Amino acid sequence: MADERIPLPSVRRFPSYLRILMQRRDAGERHISATELARELDLTPIQVRKDLASTGIEGRPKIGFAIEGLIVAITHSLGWDNAAEALIVGAGNLGSALAAYDGFSAYGLRIAALFDKDPEKIGRKVGSLTILPVDTINQYIKSHRVTIAVIAVPANQAQAAADMLVKCGIRGIWNFAPKNLRVPDDVVMQRTDLAASFAVLSIMLRRKYQEETQGEEDPQIPSAMR
Amino acid sequence: MADERIPLPSVRRFPSYLRILMQRRDAGERHISATELARELDLTPIQVRKDLASTGIEGRPKIGFAIEGLIVAITHSLGWDNAAEALIVGAGNLGSALAAYDGFSAYGLRIAALFDKDPEKIGRKVGSLTILPVDTINQYIKSHRVTIAVIAVPANQAQAAADMLVKCGIRGIWNFAPKNLRVPDDVVMQRTDLAASFAVLSIMLRRKYQEETQGEEDPQIPSAMR
Repeated sequence: MADERIPLPSVRRFPSYLRILMQRRDAGERHISATELARELDLTPIQVRKDLASTGIEGRPKIGFAIEGLIVAITHSLGWDNAAEALIVGAGNLGSALAAYDGFSAYGLRIAALFDKDPEKIGRKVGSLTILPVDTINQYIKSHRVTIAVIAVPANQAQAAADMLVKCGIRGIWNFAPKNLRVPDDVVMQRTDLAASFAVLSIMLRRKYQEETQGEEDPQIPSAMR
Repeated sequence: MADERIPLPSVRRFPSYLRILMQRRDAGERHISATELARELDLTPIQVRKDLASTGIEGRPKIGFAIEGLIVAITHSLGWDNAAEALIVGAGNLGSALAAYDGFSAYGLRIAALFDKDPEKIGRKVGSLTILPVDTINQYIKSHRVTIAVIAVPANQAQAAADMLVKCGIRGIWNFAPKNLRVPDDVVMQRTDLAASFAVLSIMLRRKYQEETQGEEDPQIPSAMR
């Protein structure tokens, strides 16, 4: 299993490689060098060669990588050649946004259904999906090939949602609720925490500002915190 | 500057602490122990004490941390006590979703305006915002106190958007486009890459599946890639 050896930082870059490779293919190109890929992605050519070597595809001197072959290999490494179906639990702003977001299809993910427990929301349309009652989710999962669930409910409802999904047979959870969730070992959990990202942006901005005004007194900051 | 010493992993957890502290405060509680916080967030009490020590607030034996004091200290450490205004460039699905997402207000971020270059979109409403023409962005930034810009345009337009924003005086950029962007040293850039997160989820799911079927032949996988 070559896959086991692909480090996660390389995996995180795979979608960016795919995007560039597909653009070049659509423009009629057949080969691309590590140097060109490195320039597009702001990486070093060495890093690019290392990332791509893990797919089993090697570049040829002076010719570079075969674009089509790399697309197939990366797509296969990620398992994106078998399009996955996902459902979303929680049709609030974020859940509805994710349901309507067409960017997922680029990586073989189809949002097949959207669930909520609020009777006011059930039956409403979000893009092409109709919001379904959450108590029909078990039935839905059993009768469709859904393997991934996106959790977009408030933090205090997220663990209950995860427990229910696992019980229904879901094996992959993408959690957008700002809470760590516990799942059994055979379930894969990926978390995207928008608040955490924004916290980092905020503190970096604050530090930049402090660097620039260093030495000046800031009467708003209590001395204990300087 | 105590702030300089707060490690980024602690910063990433600050929003989760805040959320729990605010829930407890709203429930009428005044103190909370490191053990309780640790249990809520799936951390160790030692980690919690370390994270919170960086705010300058210390817990008292048997009493714990004063909830209100911690809220003030964390909010201040993040700079979230001075509400920031942000604008969004790109009113596609993701940009519109982010514009309508009410979760940002919890961390002192107000989305003040949404811009697009598509004449068909300009003038349309997204929540309470009207989509504005992108060529008025400079004027908008000059006449409002906007410090943060969210980039939600396609990858091939993202660098041009960043260049324009920096030229207009934006100092903090939150980039949702799947592309590394180059900005001057005095600009802070935070990237949220949904495709990268999903790539990790995909490969972890694939590995789990392979573990379970280990030893079985999978005719779909060419031998070079096993």
